[in-house]
Amino acid sequence: MSSIATELEETQRLFRRHLPIATAGTPHIEVDETVLQRNLAAMQQRAEAAGVTLRPHIKTHKSIEIARRQVSLGAVGLTASKPSEAAVFSAAAFRDITLAYPVVDPASVDALLETAKANDTRITFIAGSRAGASAISRAAARHGLTLPCFLKVDVGLGRIGVKPESAEALELASFLAADSHLEFAGLLSHAGHAYSAKSPEQIAEIARREGADMAALVAKLAASGVMVKIVSTGATPTALGAPIGAGINEIRPGNYAFLDLTAVKLGLCTPADLALTVIARVVAVNDTYAIIDAGSKALSADTGPHGTGDAGYGIAVAADPERIGDSYTVVKMSEEHGFLTWKGTHPRLGDYVRIYPKHSCAVVAQFDSFLLRSASGDGRVIPVDARGKFN
Amino acid sequence: MSSIATELEETQRLFRRHLPIATAGTPHIEVDETVLQRNLAAMQQRAEAAGVTLRPHIKTHKSIEIARRQVSLGAVGLTASKPSEAAVFSAAAFRDITLAYPVVDPASVDALLETAKANDTRITFIAGSRAGASAISRAAARHGLTLPCFLKVDVGLGRIGVKPESAEALELASFLAADSHLEFAGLLSHAGHAYSAKSPEQIAEIARREGADMAALVAKLAASGVMVKIVSTGATPTALGAPIGAGINEIRPGNYAFLDLTAVKLGLCTPADLALTVIARVVAVNDTYAIIDAGSKALSADTGPHGTGDAGYGIAVAADPERIGDSYTVVKMSEEHGFLTWKGTHPRLGDYVRIYPKHSCAVVAQFDSFLLRSASGDGRVIPVDARGKFN
Repeated sequence: MSSIATELEETQRLFRRHLPIATAGTPHIEVDETVLQRNLAAMQQRAEAAGVTLRPHIKTHKSIEIARRQVSLGAVGLTASKPSEAAVFSAAAFRDITLAYPVVDPASVDALLETAKANDTRITFIAGSRAGASAISRAAARHGLTLPCFLKVDVGLGRIGVKPESAEALELASFLAADSHLEFAGLLSHAGHAYSAKSPEQIAEIARREGADMAALVAKLAASGVMVKIVSTGATPTALGAPIGAGINEIRPGNYAFLDLTAVKLGLCTPADLALTVIARVVAVNDTYAIIDAGSKALSADTGPHGTGDAGYGIAVAADPERIGDSYTVVKMSEEHGFLTWKGTHPRLGDYVRIYPKHSCAVVAQFDSFLLRSASGDGRVIPVDARGKFN
Repeated sequence: MSSIATELEETQRLFRRHLPIATAGTPHIEVDETVLQRNLAAMQQRAEAAGVTLRPHIKTHKSIEIARRQVSLGAVGLTASKPSEAAVFSAAAFRDITLAYPVVDPASVDALLETAKANDTRITFIAGSRAGASAISRAAARHGLTLPCFLKVDVGLGRIGVKPESAEALELASFLAADSHLEFAGLLSHAGHAYSAKSPEQIAEIARREGADMAALVAKLAASGVMVKIVSTGATPTALGAPIGAGINEIRPGNYAFLDLTAVKLGLCTPADLALTVIARVVAVNDTYAIIDAGSKALSADTGPHGTGDAGYGIAVAADPERIGDSYTVVKMSEEHGFLTWKGTHPRLGDYVRIYPKHSCAVVAQFDSFLLRSASGDGRVIPVDARGKFN
């Protein structure tokens, strides 16, 4: 990743990124508002140009403030993973949320459905199995509701859902369409395996295949009298790295808000598009390493989704303007310490470094808040509202 | 680790671990109070038998409740990593805390020292460099205090501190002893490299070497007129896996409260000593994997400190008594999903599994609370009070 390091140094030069705010303490997350806003607007424009709606996944930022920006730019609603996470956004008056996670027990969505009723939020579910669909139907009956539900299609990640060509796909879609407590919402997929693509061509091929598989299933269902309203695909790699296929009418990327070194490595963006960094300080220097005050508990040991990891936990640059040109690699971590190797001048005790992580979603999940830096240099503390909402 | 899986199944049989509490939701952390209390008492007895004091590191549990149990069993005080973490325990009326982390900026401990003054807490610092010692001295002067400070000795981890045989060790100890704002507390080390030991003999050798290096430095300092009061060593592997060396008079282990698969692999304990598990549910089953509702955001991608990781993120057993004998390995994870392979009967949708993590400290750091299960089966929600305190 040494060419990425060089580009990051260049980014520092070009954008004159702000000096760290000492009173914020270290480590802390800094989000560059200009870059964030540009990323949000670019995806909205990309969706509109393709004639599809955008329903961003909030997993990356878990922030009401950023979700509001996404909706005000034109997003039709939000995507969330866990019921308690969706409930945070329902309580904050977001009216349309897809819970892109399989329900297996009606009781697990009781609290969410109560919150949604109180806040007039439409919650759409997914089912990838008959037992899951029945659980949602029972939840609907318990709460006196008709609940919209997608058929979850496994387009190659091998995680959740029915295979598009399987008999089960037709059977389950028919069940969803026929059940009196459910409303069949359409088809939903997540091509997360695009994160392990080895080239832009592979990403494009995964996206092409996903579009074709979904279209074939739409046709097969139509022939059986089951009409599909929405075809919803997810994942930042396919959304940014390939044309949006004909027949798809909704996309649900999440990572595009902040991006990270994984996205750079996949060719989806340049270092100048990375909105999120972690500010840390050098607390010791020995013969081999500069030691910083951010370890696995702050940076997370997650080196990227679905197998994108290689050596290192991030690249750092000097945050001091007189040190521009110096770069570092986070080569190992303990719980509260990061071990950096360096290129350029010898790191000094107390130096600030700006770390570009490999997986921004995993970093945000560690912190209660982040610092949003405006173009003028002001920093505002924004809560990570849905952090720790695992249930 | 298949023999560990077998032992874990046996543990389930022997201890008849409680059925999951459905209303707690999944995923959640469960701590077995009987095992926890036994682990806490065993380490206290070990310290007393060796004639040393115990100052547990709270990094593992971050919990006021568990720290109170440690002190009531006889711990002389606590160890913490970050100033904001120590402040949580000072505010909870713990009177004696060692901040085992290098200070490089006096401002970083302002809030802690204010809290400590208000709560009559003695905070002891560490310094591994002249600049660090000066920073603590300046902090002391600012607050009108004399602050106790250890010399941090690097006994082989290569992270923070002076080499025991170096001229710098003598110089820095002399500086700490002479500075009018500081009180020289003694020598402090952390043999974290014992986590990458390949055998019990290697752990014993690391502990022996640590004791010998510290004793040699004590003698060298005494010859220069610098008297050492406390010789404090850390790390669960050396505390559990080797005799406590002559000359050491304080130990600071943390992980021993919960332990984990890393400790089992190092030969420090048996599966029956593991106090912390994560309860999750199977939300999908496909041809290759059972998918559970706990991924890297809950379990963390940390596979163990300082290089103890091998394949997999934990071992799981069925939490249903009729499924005893079934075990699973967490072979990969995405943010909110774990991918399990299985041995035994085919997993069913909705099954509860009990996951034994590789690194318990990293798991606790993800959650706002855990469920403490008493021997009678009652579950009490205990907050992870110092979670997210990184500054």
